[in-house]
Amino acid sequence: MFNTFGTIFRLTSFGESHGAGIGGVIDGCPAGLLLDEEFIQAELDKRKPGNAQAGLAGTTRKEADQVKFLSGVYEGRTTGTPLAFFVENSNQKSGDYAKLAETYRPGHADRAYDEKYGFRDPRGGGRSSARETVARVVGGAVAQLYLKKQGINIVAYTEALDGIYAKDFGDFSLETCEKRLFFAPNDEVISHWQERIEEVRRELDTHGGVVSIEAHGVPAGLGEPVFQKLDAYLSYALMGVGAVKAVEIGAGTLAAVSRGSQNNDTMYYEGGKLCYMSNNAGGIEGGISNGQPILLKAYVKPIPSVAKEQKTVSKQGENVNLSIGGRHDICAIPRIVPVLKAMTAMTLMDMFLLQKRMDNHPMDNCMGKGNNF
Amino acid sequence: MFNTFGTIFRLTSFGESHGAGIGGVIDGCPAGLLLDEEFIQAELDKRKPGNAQAGLAGTTRKEADQVKFLSGVYEGRTTGTPLAFFVENSNQKSGDYAKLAETYRPGHADRAYDEKYGFRDPRGGGRSSARETVARVVGGAVAQLYLKKQGINIVAYTEALDGIYAKDFGDFSLETCEKRLFFAPNDEVISHWQERIEEVRRELDTHGGVVSIEAHGVPAGLGEPVFQKLDAYLSYALMGVGAVKAVEIGAGTLAAVSRGSQNNDTMYYEGGKLCYMSNNAGGIEGGISNGQPILLKAYVKPIPSVAKEQKTVSKQGENVNLSIGGRHDICAIPRIVPVLKAMTAMTLMDMFLLQKRMDNHPMDNCMGKGNNF
Amino acid sequence: MFNTFGTIFRLTSFGESHGAGIGGVIDGCPAGLLLDEEFIQAELDKRKPGNAQAGLAGTTRKEADQVKFLSGVYEGRTTGTPLAFFVENSNQKSGDYAKLAETYRPGHADRAYDEKYGFRDPRGGGRSSARETVARVVGGAVAQLYLKKQGINIVAYTEALDGIYAKDFGDFSLETCEKRLFFAPNDEVISHWQERIEEVRRELDTHGGVVSIEAHGVPAGLGEPVFQKLDAYLSYALMGVGAVKAVEIGAGTLAAVSRGSQNNDTMYYEGGKLCYMSNNAGGIEGGISNGQPILLKAYVKPIPSVAKEQKTVSKQGENVNLSIGGRHDICAIPRIVPVLKAMTAMTLMDMFLLQKRMDNHPMDNCMGKGNNF
Amino acid sequence: MFNTFGTIFRLTSFGESHGAGIGGVIDGCPAGLLLDEEFIQAELDKRKPGNAQAGLAGTTRKEADQVKFLSGVYEGRTTGTPLAFFVENSNQKSGDYAKLAETYRPGHADRAYDEKYGFRDPRGGGRSSARETVARVVGGAVAQLYLKKQGINIVAYTEALDGIYAKDFGDFSLETCEKRLFFAPNDEVISHWQERIEEVRRELDTHGGVVSIEAHGVPAGLGEPVFQKLDAYLSYALMGVGAVKAVEIGAGTLAAVSRGSQNNDTMYYEGGKLCYMSNNAGGIEGGISNGQPILLKAYVKPIPSVAKEQKTVSKQGENVNLSIGGRHDICAIPRIVPVLKAMTAMTLMDMFLLQKRMDNHPMDNCMGKGNNF
Repeated sequence: MFNTFGTIFRLTSFGESHGAGIGGVIDGCPAGLLLDEEFIQAELDKRKPGNAQAGLAGTTRKEADQVKFLSGVYEGRTTGTPLAFFVENSNQKSGDYAKLAETYRPGHADRAYDEKYGFRDPRGGGRSSARETVARVVGGAVAQLYLKKQGINIVAYTEALDGIYAKDFGDFSLETCEKRLFFAPNDEVISHWQERIEEVRRELDTHGGVVSIEAHGVPAGLGEPVFQKLDAYLSYALMGVGAVKAVEIGAGTLAAVSRGSQNNDTMYYEGGKLCYMSNNAGGIEGGISNGQPILLKAYVKPIPSVAKEQKTVSKQGENVNLSIGGRHDICAIPRIVPVLKAMTAMTLMDMFLLQKRMDNHPMDNCMGKGNNF
Repeated sequence: MFNTFGTIFRLTSFGESHGAGIGGVIDGCPAGLLLDEEFIQAELDKRKPGNAQAGLAGTTRKEADQVKFLSGVYEGRTTGTPLAFFVENSNQKSGDYAKLAETYRPGHADRAYDEKYGFRDPRGGGRSSARETVARVVGGAVAQLYLKKQGINIVAYTEALDGIYAKDFGDFSLETCEKRLFFAPNDEVISHWQERIEEVRRELDTHGGVVSIEAHGVPAGLGEPVFQKLDAYLSYALMGVGAVKAVEIGAGTLAAVSRGSQNNDTMYYEGGKLCYMSNNAGGIEGGISNGQPILLKAYVKPIPSVAKEQKTVSKQGENVNLSIGGRHDICAIPRIVPVLKAMTAMTLMDMFLLQKRMDNHPMDNCMGKGNNF
Repeated sequence: MFNTFGTIFRLTSFGESHGAGIGGVIDGCPAGLLLDEEFIQAELDKRKPGNAQAGLAGTTRKEADQVKFLSGVYEGRTTGTPLAFFVENSNQKSGDYAKLAETYRPGHADRAYDEKYGFRDPRGGGRSSARETVARVVGGAVAQLYLKKQGINIVAYTEALDGIYAKDFGDFSLETCEKRLFFAPNDEVISHWQERIEEVRRELDTHGGVVSIEAHGVPAGLGEPVFQKLDAYLSYALMGVGAVKAVEIGAGTLAAVSRGSQNNDTMYYEGGKLCYMSNNAGGIEGGISNGQPILLKAYVKPIPSVAKEQKTVSKQGENVNLSIGGRHDICAIPRIVPVLKAMTAMTLMDMFLLQKRMDNHPMDNCMGKGNNF
Repeated sequence: MFNTFGTIFRLTSFGESHGAGIGGVIDGCPAGLLLDEEFIQAELDKRKPGNAQAGLAGTTRKEADQVKFLSGVYEGRTTGTPLAFFVENSNQKSGDYAKLAETYRPGHADRAYDEKYGFRDPRGGGRSSARETVARVVGGAVAQLYLKKQGINIVAYTEALDGIYAKDFGDFSLETCEKRLFFAPNDEVISHWQERIEEVRRELDTHGGVVSIEAHGVPAGLGEPVFQKLDAYLSYALMGVGAVKAVEIGAGTLAAVSRGSQNNDTMYYEGGKLCYMSNNAGGIEGGISNGQPILLKAYVKPIPSVAKEQKTVSKQGENVNLSIGGRHDICAIPRIVPVLKAMTAMTLMDMFLLQKRMDNHPMDNCMGKGNNF
């Protein structure tokens, strides 16, 4: 298995959903960074089941999810040595899952697992459990602490739920979106989403949605021209989160139906400052950041565990009917929002460390500025 | 710069669009593979400017693009040692580009390059040139030779041009699509696309489109549950091709507006065989292939070099007007189609070698089948 | 910092000598392996200060060093998911080190650290402390559990202390060496070593020695012909342990003064079995294991912390005199012996997983056996 | 197979001893470096069979070995894009080797190859041929061009041949050693070596020796404290060269028989400058360079191909007698000297790029200097 993300800023994630807990080791984090544990815990709380933002879409499970650091911190600052952390599990009702051991849940990796490993952990999917994302959120929170120092801020919010787009109900005020129910970008859409969620729940079904992630203050020059392009790396990071089925940058799918003359982001100088009239590129051209905000969208599929009865098969090869009760979310959103934010943060952090080093390096292949010798 | 793709099956690409040529080294290719140079050249010919499939969308430039292998082959078979190859450049008209040295072309990486490197090669973009993809197509062709032996076949075709979808004009016959103009999936759409291209060309503009890539015969079990998920890796591969702004797997963006009960791919047994009633997952669940065909879509932006006059800026900081003549394509499609096919092939090849090794390995972390000791 | 060892079987080590403890995450360990915690603890106990084998050479410090696994184990067997473990620190007397904060100890990395980081942790060297090797010993013990299943056994013993070679006093009985004082290969040498150690201690000095590591049952075929040669990888592993200043394979330094006709390991067939008349190659030819036992030697320098007064400098730039009391070992041997054994085990494990996969893989570049297609 | 060396400055080597030629791709070389092809060719000429330095120890084969760059150079300077190069083979007498196809040469990898691959290329060993080192020497020469700019100079010379040490005959003048026969460090030893070589040749035998490599001007701070230690990495690089059986740093094997009080390199201040009274550490403490010259020794075994008749076995399993005529060297030295120099250069280059970036990076884990925030 591969459980490490990143090349310079590396998160190695460990733990199972029904074991002692979930943890990770962050290697490559700069020394001297003030490790604001309150901020880290706050990010973690955003993905907690039944947290404020989850509202009606959330599960009714409650988890403590207190992060504890085991190494790499001295007098509140990082020492440059590996940051190890651990989040204890609580409230494990393996029983809830036991009856699923012999059935392949549609839309889940159950069968793929049996094909691949010859066995699987029915207790919430082991490593494939969404609970593993606890480690990612902690890693992303540490990355954000560093990026903020560089003036890079990442905001993530819910763009649409079950086809209902927030933009159709009011303007966005992103600075407050993470405090809103569902991480909504405005207040107006919330009631519409709540109604729809109630409706879907009554239908014993689940629904999907769209999440937007924006990174502001990213300097121009991050990313490599051939492989390790910034947009490619970000796609890898976001598509690597369960339930995401499509990723787009800037205009994304719309770029495919626009013309060059409209899609190009026209540049002009105003007061000696270079400006862009649009950001269809989403802040990345030729795989390299151009200084504009980086705009990403992730399309999230419905939770496959539906209460409504479905046809499926058993491990033994019979056709069976299945209806999944449990205490499941009916949408991966909003709990997936902080996870997508974290993956974006770790990706930018990794690229930033790589490029920043290069920028500071005379004669470097990634820095020709004044290679006059 | 990072110019290597892959972990086990690794392509290291080199060369510039206006240097001696483009080449690459493939390390990690199994020994004993019959190196069908005709097939490789045929794949390469598909991305050639002015090739049959390009039709009216193609540029009028002509290039020889003959691949020559420098090592790793003995009596027509691979020896397991690195396969080095080289494709000489011809017909370099640097003059065509000289006048662009001082101007930032909208939609290009020109400014990002200057920000990053402090200089750039105006002669067609150096490494950022689409010409670099020559090496990828050769790498992908070698990968396909191996995958075919495993019963894995990849087909790539044009789904839509400038919003005109082939499916609206007739059924698909994929086995012949690579022989058709524009790699069209049916005959009916071709004339509609030709008309539209003529129209766009008359308007001195450019357009985008959508490319589909399908991989048939992929065994279940490819991909890792946490990081190195198959869908994440494929997104990295496709988004890493210039002009691609969105990538989707299976139902993709549509999954975000569907319900769990529709989106789940229902399984049932028929004649002792496990069947699926749909493939919204696009052959990948939980990051692992499930044995169904892998379905990918790449959304391609319009070529940014438009003949129509655009506002932009000069390197020196003035606002200028620019109209780009040259001999440019007006759409990255269809020339990008074999490139996307090649990236998919190299990704599957790399994953296959990794997993295949694991499958054959008792007690392996990626193969628990009968770990009875 | 880089805190990960290995490519497939990967140990990521974390923790500080004076923090909460030392731990690690092992990723890539095969599933289904019986995790014999008694064996792992026994290996760990061998490097414990004041352990039986340390005898008079050991420090008088006592540490608990109980290993605790946090993930990756289910009903006593590995699940293929990351194995995280933690060993709590105890008995931290930072005070002992405080007075050293301003002085550069000769033979230590103190000055190099200040040059590199601008600061250092005087409390026993932080990550550079020998205590970090706790994680390596656990990783090596897990590797040994797997290798034993493959019939590969590793034995490590003390070849010489302060120039006194065990071979001059009696034959070796390696099966019992790990039970003997100083991991001595025979009983006869022990009293001679004890006398010498007493003498060196009276002289307020320290001494070095030579450690031998042998791996029996290693199949032929491990290692790559160009880079990632098995002998190169083993050298990296052993030279990466503090205090080791030279590494040799087989005849090693003696090969430089012998003739081809003597140094070559003559092969002959006896009873249809291929035999070697010698093992000057130490089991590795052309970077690849040849099926003979792998023979390694590590030359260990004296502990630089001597009680005898030495001239040195202060961080502030004055010349000062220093004599180091503390509770230090006077020789890195025997405590380094289980660490070198562990590094050898992890290296062979990593190579074995890589090659084993290849051996089982038809058409693999590392396996041409019957490439008849 | 793995044919890439390095992490940031990466050489991917390709080609066979009896194919079209040997080549490589250098990725990660800084832009703007003046590519002095004369220097590169001069380094390459040093490993040429029958070159001046080889003297009587050399083979009588003659090879052109002209290096030709295929990419990455523009107007004589590196562009930061991959540097690809090719050296054509000439004078291939496969016939010379044909008769060896069925015999396992003692001391060669023949049998290990058959065990590993099931087949081998008898024509000079394919990738295992010393001819592959052509690519390493070119890579090392490019690295040296960069390192010289940083004030880092590497010198390599023959310390001893068949037990005859140069230091017993006169003082060293290293600045001229690469111009002397056998890369001798003084003139006095040359005649003694010549006599001995003649003697060994008359005895139809071969001999070994010792090579020293010194790197001057290496700044303090290169290397990582836990894994990726500078001494570990250099050992990997040198032990990865065929025929090397032992590697030592500084006092090396002698450190094992010295006392802490002698082995420690005493520091003192003179005229405000920190000085060392010795360099037993060989410039590396705790895995990190300390600013002193880096001192390395490689112990080289005798060439296994001896003209004298030896006992060995055939692939078919009979005991046979073998005497190898051919046009073989009778010692890997001096031809191995520029190869060991090149490996040292590439290792330092790779580490330097990594660390230099870090040194320039505020808040970096490898650079705490003034982490005052």
